[in-house]
Amino acid sequence: MKNLLTRRSIRKYSEKEVSEELLNRLMNEAARTQTMGNLQLYSVVITRSNEMKAKLAPAHFNQPMVTEAPVVLTICADFNRTSTWARCRNANPGYDNFLSFINAATDALLYTQTLCNLFDEEGLGYCYLGTTVYQPQQIIDVLRLPQLVMPVATITVGWPAEEPPLSDRLPLESFIHHETYNDYLATDIDRFYAAKEALPENQHFVEINHKETLAQIFTDIRYTRKDNEALSTELIHTLVRQGFLPYTINKGLF
Amino acid sequence: MKNLLTRRSIRKYSEKEVSEELLNRLMNEAARTQTMGNLQLYSVVITRSNEMKAKLAPAHFNQPMVTEAPVVLTICADFNRTSTWARCRNANPGYDNFLSFINAATDALLYTQTLCNLFDEEGLGYCYLGTTVYQPQQIIDVLRLPQLVMPVATITVGWPAEEPPLSDRLPLESFIHHETYNDYLATDIDRFYAAKEALPENQHFVEINHKETLAQIFTDIRYTRKDNEALSTELIHTLVRQGFLPYTINKGLF
Repeated sequence: MKNLLTRRSIRKYSEKEVSEELLNRLMNEAARTQTMGNLQLYSVVITRSNEMKAKLAPAHFNQPMVTEAPVVLTICADFNRTSTWARCRNANPGYDNFLSFINAATDALLYTQTLCNLFDEEGLGYCYLGTTVYQPQQIIDVLRLPQLVMPVATITVGWPAEEPPLSDRLPLESFIHHETYNDYLATDIDRFYAAKEALPENQHFVEINHKETLAQIFTDIRYTRKDNEALSTELIHTLVRQGFLPYTINKGLF
Repeated sequence: MKNLLTRRSIRKYSEKEVSEELLNRLMNEAARTQTMGNLQLYSVVITRSNEMKAKLAPAHFNQPMVTEAPVVLTICADFNRTSTWARCRNANPGYDNFLSFINAATDALLYTQTLCNLFDEEGLGYCYLGTTVYQPQQIIDVLRLPQLVMPVATITVGWPAEEPPLSDRLPLESFIHHETYNDYLATDIDRFYAAKEALPENQHFVEINHKETLAQIFTDIRYTRKDNEALSTELIHTLVRQGFLPYTINKGLF
């Protein structure tokens, strides 16, 4: 697949426009991706206006790509369209539940990744913003997403104006398992993470943050228990508000 | 992207082997996909033995692809490996929560879709099994998945022995929105779903099932409220058991 082996996240974009024609063609082609019952349980909100980018930025911790990229795409798990279709056709939709969220989020993420692979092939640069699920309510408010629509991915897109180094990856054998899951021994961990831990940039991170190990960078600074737990609660509350976790179904569970 | 526009789900496979070399190459290339903090929060369990396929089949409602495909891949959201790494490195992982599940599931699904796009390019056939999240506990038991590992996708893979017709897709304008979400009016629904509803095979489905509309096939037969709600409860219980939804965090929510 063209450019896959040299793909990197692109955070700086040239002034060159991303034409509506090109974007539409790629968004249409990506829809060939498999989808549950062929229902296409996703929507894409396209942000091009500076005003809307500025409104979206805080939800993404003001990462500069959001206001600097020519195009921002917010991909949503969407059971609203299918449910509206059903109601218009004398059918009674039953998609206000957690399984339906997972099904729609799956459709949305598979669609997103085909689109990213198409961007790579065209030479477009993009950055996937993991922040989408951190403060989803802000995104919902800005984009006016109705019930049964939940943002699951954001991609900033443009023509690359940088060529950052390729990031490392774990060896294949670290993430594949034959027939059953083989849990990791300390010796496996040493072998699989040695190259990552030895990278000069990672050793530098550890040093300037006064940590003992690279893993502590992740657990103590980048993705902490405290943040994860607070954001989990907020994410669950947002799923409740968007109608994907009705109290009536789940109240007995916790 | 080669073969994307003619992709279809393949459920019948030839006798030809899928070599370990080819599969390993593609699984390694797919790992170029973006991933949260470059942590690669996924694992793939590869099933080739007939015995294990037979054990997996009931979790997928005995769809014949599971036992007939040369290879079955179960892709899992995996925070176990990263947490084990942390514990081996004097770091205290905090990933036993819902946000971490969503982050790992996202990584796993993006990885899955790049792999599917690579399969398309190679001419391999595959079928994505949405059943993975229906009875995940069975899969967990068969594949012996530890805590913080959750199956999110299954793909059956082989060389195609059929060429089914291309399935239809909704028009692009039905799933894109400019700047804000434009909710659907009845006239929009008519326009976007007209072609799908007019397909002879869909009209035939409606007829043989004695339904009034195609939408009723989905709401009353394929994806019913009753099934969705029962499977939602089971899915949430499984997330609790796998350690991604601790009672202590969520007990105040419902």
